[in-house]
Amino acid sequence: MSEVAIATMAADARQFWKRGWMLGTCGNLSVKLRDDPLEMLVSASGVDKSRLRAQDFLRVGAGLELLAPSRHRPSSEVTVHEVVYRRTRARAIYHVHSVWNNLASRLAQDRIELTGVEMAKGLAGIHLGDPVLLPVVDNARDMRDLARNVEAGLDERYPAVVVRLHGVYSWGADLDEARRHVEVIEFLLEYYGRAAGISAVR
Amino acid sequence: MSEVAIATMAADARQFWKRGWMLGTCGNLSVKLRDDPLEMLVSASGVDKSRLRAQDFLRVGAGLELLAPSRHRPSSEVTVHEVVYRRTRARAIYHVHSVWNNLASRLAQDRIELTGVEMAKGLAGIHLGDPVLLPVVDNARDMRDLARNVEAGLDERYPAVVVRLHGVYSWGADLDEARRHVEVIEFLLEYYGRAAGISAVR
Amino acid sequence: MSEVAIATMAADARQFWKRGWMLGTCGNLSVKLRDDPLEMLVSASGVDKSRLRAQDFLRVGAGLELLAPSRHRPSSEVTVHEVVYRRTRARAIYHVHSVWNNLASRLAQDRIELTGVEMAKGLAGIHLGDPVLLPVVDNARDMRDLARNVEAGLDERYPAVVVRLHGVYSWGADLDEARRHVEVIEFLLEYYGRAAGISAVR
Amino acid sequence: MSEVAIATMAADARQFWKRGWMLGTCGNLSVKLRDDPLEMLVSASGVDKSRLRAQDFLRVGAGLELLAPSRHRPSSEVTVHEVVYRRTRARAIYHVHSVWNNLASRLAQDRIELTGVEMAKGLAGIHLGDPVLLPVVDNARDMRDLARNVEAGLDERYPAVVVRLHGVYSWGADLDEARRHVEVIEFLLEYYGRAAGISAVR
Repeated sequence: MSEVAIATMAADARQFWKRGWMLGTCGNLSVKLRDDPLEMLVSASGVDKSRLRAQDFLRVGAGLELLAPSRHRPSSEVTVHEVVYRRTRARAIYHVHSVWNNLASRLAQDRIELTGVEMAKGLAGIHLGDPVLLPVVDNARDMRDLARNVEAGLDERYPAVVVRLHGVYSWGADLDEARRHVEVIEFLLEYYGRAAGISAVR
Repeated sequence: MSEVAIATMAADARQFWKRGWMLGTCGNLSVKLRDDPLEMLVSASGVDKSRLRAQDFLRVGAGLELLAPSRHRPSSEVTVHEVVYRRTRARAIYHVHSVWNNLASRLAQDRIELTGVEMAKGLAGIHLGDPVLLPVVDNARDMRDLARNVEAGLDERYPAVVVRLHGVYSWGADLDEARRHVEVIEFLLEYYGRAAGISAVR
Repeated sequence: MSEVAIATMAADARQFWKRGWMLGTCGNLSVKLRDDPLEMLVSASGVDKSRLRAQDFLRVGAGLELLAPSRHRPSSEVTVHEVVYRRTRARAIYHVHSVWNNLASRLAQDRIELTGVEMAKGLAGIHLGDPVLLPVVDNARDMRDLARNVEAGLDERYPAVVVRLHGVYSWGADLDEARRHVEVIEFLLEYYGRAAGISAVR
Repeated sequence: MSEVAIATMAADARQFWKRGWMLGTCGNLSVKLRDDPLEMLVSASGVDKSRLRAQDFLRVGAGLELLAPSRHRPSSEVTVHEVVYRRTRARAIYHVHSVWNNLASRLAQDRIELTGVEMAKGLAGIHLGDPVLLPVVDNARDMRDLARNVEAGLDERYPAVVVRLHGVYSWGADLDEARRHVEVIEFLLEYYGRAAGISAVR
C-alpha cells in the first residue's frame, strides 16, 4: 500500500509543481494508513516537490510522533492533517499554494461562493445548483492555531478549506479523489479570481 | 479504426489536461464508428483524462445502449454527443471545460462575437471577415435538457456550442479536425475574455 | 543543411505549440536555402505544428513555384515570407499567433512602444534606451494585400512586424536567432498587454 | 563539484525557460567555487537557456578574468554576480526575466511589500508576519552602474534584488536554495502584480 501511495503522491506533487501549485518546496501531502490508532504517511518538511522519493515521506501517529526513524522531520502542517483526518472522512490530504488561491482568499470574506458553475460537480456529492460556499479561514503563525482555524472552517459539504493568503487543504476518500478535488478547486478559484477582476470593471 | 481512434483521443485528452481544459476528470470525447445505425465510441464517466486507456472507452448505440459489456458507464453527456452526431456532420466530438470558456460564456449573451480575428480561419469554412458568432446556451442539470439546449444552439456555420458556466462542445469531420477546432476555440475565448477585461477599463 | 533545419523548425514549432503560439495548425516557418535565385524551405499549409516531419516542408522559389514535387501546398502566407527575404537580411522566418500578440495589436495604433524594457536587448542590435517601436500593420484577406502591408511596415531596426488581430512575423540571421526573436517579442507583447490592463485602471 | 553544479544549473535553467523566465537567451546563473580568492562558475553570454552544456559555463575570478580558456565570453552581468558574492553569503545566484517581475517592478517604488503572505516563508529566515519589503532598484545600461545599483539595494533580510523593467537577481546558500528562492519570489511577484490589477478596480 505505502509504495503505491508514495509513487502516486510523488507523481501528483510533480504535476502540481509544474502547474505552479507547489513551488519553492511549499505544500504537503499525506495519506491515512490506519484508522485506530491513526497512522499517517506525510511528506517531510522543506523537500522539493518536483522529485519526491520514498525517504521524503514519514509515518506519523495520532500524537504526531514518528512511527519509524527518519533523517527528516514531518511537515510542520501535519497538525492540520491530523485534525482533518480526525474530523472528516478524508483518507488522503493535499495542500497547495497557488497565486489564484491566494488572490481568491483575499477577495472573499469567510466563504467563496461558486454556486452554478458546472465544474463544481467534480467535488464529491455536489450537483449543479447546489450551494457551493467554500470555507475561508485566517492564516496563523502557530501551527496549533492554524489547525484550530481549519477545524472551525470544516463544512462536511465540501472537501476543502481555503486558508487566507496561504493556500488550500483539500482531501478525498483516496488519493485519486484528493487529486481530483485539488484540480477542481484550483480551477474554481482561478475562475473566481479572474471573474472578480473582470466584473469589478463592468 | 478503434485502436487508432483511442490512441488519438487519449493523447489529445492528455494535452487538454496539461493545458487545464480537462482537469478533475471533467470533459469527454467521442468518435463516430458507424452512421446508420449510429455507433459511437465514448469516454467513460468520471475517468482521469491524463491517462485514458482502451477500457475507458465504450461502444454506444443510437438509443444510448452499450454495444459491448464494460465495467464503466459512458459519460452522462453522451446524450449531447448523440444529438450532435444526429444533427451535424460531426464524426468526432470533444468537450472541454476551461477557465476562459467559463468566463467568456458569462460575459456574453446568446452569441460570442469574434468577427475579424484571423485565428477564426482555423474553423472549417470560415474566412477572414466572415461573421463569427459562436452560440452560447444555458447549462442544465438534467442531461436531456442540456441536449435540447445544445440542439437549439446548433448553427451549421460553426463547429461548436458554448454552454454557459460549463464548457464547450466542439467537433469535426475527424479527430484531427475536432482537436484543431478545440484549440482554435479555446484561443478565441481566451482572447475574448482578456479583451473584455482590458477594454472595459479603457 | 535541410535536415538540420527541418529538425530545428520542427522542435521550435512544437515548443511554440506547447506555449499556445501555434495552436490549431496556425503559424508557419521557413528558412532561406539559397540567395539568388531565392530558394526557401517553407512549412506546408494546414499541418499540425506539434508533430512536423520532413514531408511537411516544401522547397519554394522566388516566384512561389514548388522546386520539388509534394503532396502538400506551401502555406498561403509564403507570399509574406518571400517579401521579407527580399527586403531584409532574414535567413529564417517564424510566424506565430498568440493571444497576447492579438491583444497588443488591438490596443496599439501603428506602433507598439516598448522603449526601456531590458528584455528588448534580446533583439539583435537593440541596446537599453534605444527606441523600441514595433510596427503594427492591418490584416488582409488576400495574401498579396497582406504581403504589401507587411512590406510597408518593415523597419530595418526591428526583426518583426505585428499584424493586427492576426499574429507576428519575426525573423533572424539564422533559425536560432529567429526563435530568440519570437521568444523576446512574445514576452514583450505579453508585458505590453498586461501593463495596459493594469495601468488603465490606475 | 563543478559537474554536479553544471547539471543542476542546466536543469534549473531549462525549467525556468519552460516557465517563461529565461526566454530568448535572457538570464544567467552562477555558483561560487572558491571563497578567497573568489572563483565563480558563470553561464556564458547569449546562450540558449533551454539546453545548457558544460562548455556554456566559465570559471571567472574576482577581477572578472577568465580562469580557464573558453570560446565564450561570460555573461556581461557577471559584474553583478561578483558584487553579490562579495557583499552577501550567497553561494549560488540565479537571474531571471519574467513578465510578472517586470510588471511588479513598474508598479512599485523602491520596495515591493509582501508582508503577510505565507509563501514568503519560503525565503530563508522569513517567518509569517515578518516585514517582506523586496528591494527594487533602477536598471542601467552600463554594467558597473547596474552592479552599483544592485549593491545599494542589498538588504540582508532578503535574498533578492528586483531590477526595474529588467528582472530579479536571487541567491542562496547553495543551488537548491537559489532555485527555491527564485520560485518563491516569482510566485510573490505574480501575486503582487495580479492583486494590483484587481484591487485597483475595487
